[in-house]
Amino acid sequence: MTFLAQILDLAAMPSGEIPASARSMARFSLFDWLVCGRAGVSEPLAVILRDYVGAEGGLPAASVFGGTKAPARAAALVNGATSHALDYDDTHFGHVGHPSVAIYPAALAVGEEVGASAADVADAFLIGAEASVRIGMVLGAGHYNRGFHQTATAGAFGATVAAGRLYGLTRDQIRVAIGLCATRASGLKSQFGTMGKPYNAGIAASNGIECAGLARAGFTSADDGLMGAQGFVLTHADAPQPSPPVGTFLFEDVKYKLHACCHGTHAIIEALSALKRAHNLTPGRVASIHLRTGTRWLSVCDIKAPRTGLEIKFSYNWLAGMVLAGISTASDRAYTDTLAQDDLLADFAAKITVEGDAALTDMQVVGEVQLKDGGKLPFAYDLAARLPDAVLENRLRAKATGLIGADGEQIWAMIVALDSLGARDLGKALR
Amino acid sequence: MTFLAQILDLAAMPSGEIPASARSMARFSLFDWLVCGRAGVSEPLAVILRDYVGAEGGLPAASVFGGTKAPARAAALVNGATSHALDYDDTHFGHVGHPSVAIYPAALAVGEEVGASAADVADAFLIGAEASVRIGMVLGAGHYNRGFHQTATAGAFGATVAAGRLYGLTRDQIRVAIGLCATRASGLKSQFGTMGKPYNAGIAASNGIECAGLARAGFTSADDGLMGAQGFVLTHADAPQPSPPVGTFLFEDVKYKLHACCHGTHAIIEALSALKRAHNLTPGRVASIHLRTGTRWLSVCDIKAPRTGLEIKFSYNWLAGMVLAGISTASDRAYTDTLAQDDLLADFAAKITVEGDAALTDMQVVGEVQLKDGGKLPFAYDLAARLPDAVLENRLRAKATGLIGADGEQIWAMIVALDSLGARDLGKALR
Repeated sequence: MTFLAQILDLAAMPSGEIPASARSMARFSLFDWLVCGRAGVSEPLAVILRDYVGAEGGLPAASVFGGTKAPARAAALVNGATSHALDYDDTHFGHVGHPSVAIYPAALAVGEEVGASAADVADAFLIGAEASVRIGMVLGAGHYNRGFHQTATAGAFGATVAAGRLYGLTRDQIRVAIGLCATRASGLKSQFGTMGKPYNAGIAASNGIECAGLARAGFTSADDGLMGAQGFVLTHADAPQPSPPVGTFLFEDVKYKLHACCHGTHAIIEALSALKRAHNLTPGRVASIHLRTGTRWLSVCDIKAPRTGLEIKFSYNWLAGMVLAGISTASDRAYTDTLAQDDLLADFAAKITVEGDAALTDMQVVGEVQLKDGGKLPFAYDLAARLPDAVLENRLRAKATGLIGADGEQIWAMIVALDSLGARDLGKALR
Repeated sequence: MTFLAQILDLAAMPSGEIPASARSMARFSLFDWLVCGRAGVSEPLAVILRDYVGAEGGLPAASVFGGTKAPARAAALVNGATSHALDYDDTHFGHVGHPSVAIYPAALAVGEEVGASAADVADAFLIGAEASVRIGMVLGAGHYNRGFHQTATAGAFGATVAAGRLYGLTRDQIRVAIGLCATRASGLKSQFGTMGKPYNAGIAASNGIECAGLARAGFTSADDGLMGAQGFVLTHADAPQPSPPVGTFLFEDVKYKLHACCHGTHAIIEALSALKRAHNLTPGRVASIHLRTGTRWLSVCDIKAPRTGLEIKFSYNWLAGMVLAGISTASDRAYTDTLAQDDLLADFAAKITVEGDAALTDMQVVGEVQLKDGGKLPFAYDLAARLPDAVLENRLRAKATGLIGADGEQIWAMIVALDSLGARDLGKALR
């Protein structure tokens, strides 16, 4: 079976066959995506895009973060960028991308446009995200290393599948929509550090809606725009990878950012948090900490003496002290320039040594705390391990409250009640 | 000076410094583009896109081929695709693309939106087209051969420059707009033969408006999204070519399709038309014709016995007979399935032999007519030679009348009066 046929089969999967564990993760992603979008509404790029789309006007078919309405395609453009503005949304390490910010904006906007149920929106997202993860894996590391941004490129295909499913496209129409996406999808990593990065997520989401909408209206396109000769994969990837076996939802490996800092620091934060809970560990009891981390991170988040709040987000030494001193790493507001001048944290930072270890993945950390009383506390953490649903729920709810206050719990209540809501009810969470 | 700086200098060129010969070609292109667009309004893809954009609604800022109005970005999407629907629009062989269909839709729509003069629209097109040609040449044959469609990719940058000029962007804003275009531009050749091909032109035009509009509103992007590390060129071209010397308008080499058939047959049509005029040549006087053509065309337009009207467009043998028999090759309506069954043309086709010649360019033909009276008429034609303006004018006006009847002359009158018109007057030609 061709890879395209696998994706078309996936797109046609009956909702009744979707495994509960995958659906559960799609709903956690929905919650986290809504929270990140709400937290991003005042970012300058979100304001610019909202105003741009507002000036164009048009049918108010779908909700926009910030409380306005717009045509579905336009809403997806704004919502994708807005929800990625803080870079605090979910990540799939296999896909090498951020699935929710590219695909939920398309699923929700089309769901609102056609009057779908909220549950169908979440299922369409899940199917689209699974397609996106698989296409991202086929594009492979070579695609990313060449300079493409899977969030945008593979993401556009996921958005196309999600939108196509909610539009009720036939198998052949989904094929056409994917073909159109092949000629429409774009996105470069060289935008990182600029508004172009979150824009990429919006581009993906809006491309998906347009391609699905044109296929619905009778457009034609290349027979296999994805894998065919001079199709998207062969033009955009130097070393395409084999397609992963079908039958599972790889999307389930999605990870959530629970700390408002570099993803490379999250494993050590989790490890030290666990030690603190288990042993009531405080900075005063610690003589030294030695940790080993994936080598890639040494050039990313090992700033020994951060000068600003932003640099703290890339400093193992500072973050370790924050964890043991009980300073939240979850709230963006914790990372102040003042904190970078804190004497106690500076003293504690001198106790930390960091070493690269090529045997570790980007999600792993190992190390040991040497106590002043002579005791030793070894630790290890792997972000790849799936958190129990109850733990993940509590963590995501706490993150939400930190980001958007009491509205976080209101949005959580919508997730709990999802099966009784319509997409248009869900759209009200964007106000 | 970096290539980006060259493009930014070009974008800022005062109108007073634009050479008359380049401006003249930009106005021929405007005429031909308007005619092609008007001729395409009933094509299914044009109807679908017009309806799609119409359903979205929004500010009626710009004219759409077919008589509706839409936001500038949306109008450009429809107009780009509509004007490329018949594949009868202009070509630039160095750029490897169709400049007008990607760039005029952006220039006209923004010109209407901001209330520019028609002359400023034509100048902005020219500047954008020159940028597009140069970027297409830097992307090079490797980009095209990898599977990208310069009309769409380089075209998007041209549309960005044209739109940015009409929005009155600063040099730094144009740089940002080009950076955004780097992450937005797309388009694959594997769409050829489907609605995806003309869609590519619309994508380019609409991308240009969105990128220029966001830069105008304060967006940021990569410093040099075009030529920088992991910028557009290095991610999309395996063997970028040196940038051509500045100071001339390479756009002036643009070519117009004057026959509604494969571009590979145009040189022989011109050569035989000239012989017919000079010697009153008729099919009955011809014993045989031998012609040599660029080798690439042998697999494209050397169908010996066409079965349909479409196949006639790719048949040297049939087209040679049509020219000498006085059957117009300019009108799309001439290419009927009935004509493929014509006995006289079939008899004449047997007199033609075709040979590939690697020494010839894609624009050249040479050969000889052997007359029944024993005489010989050698011929040669090179499409690269620029036609005198008066000849080109007559040919384009005849093409226009063939395509859209008396409206062609009305549009020509607008071109003649261009310096006294506004963009919004020009927009009325799209109805």
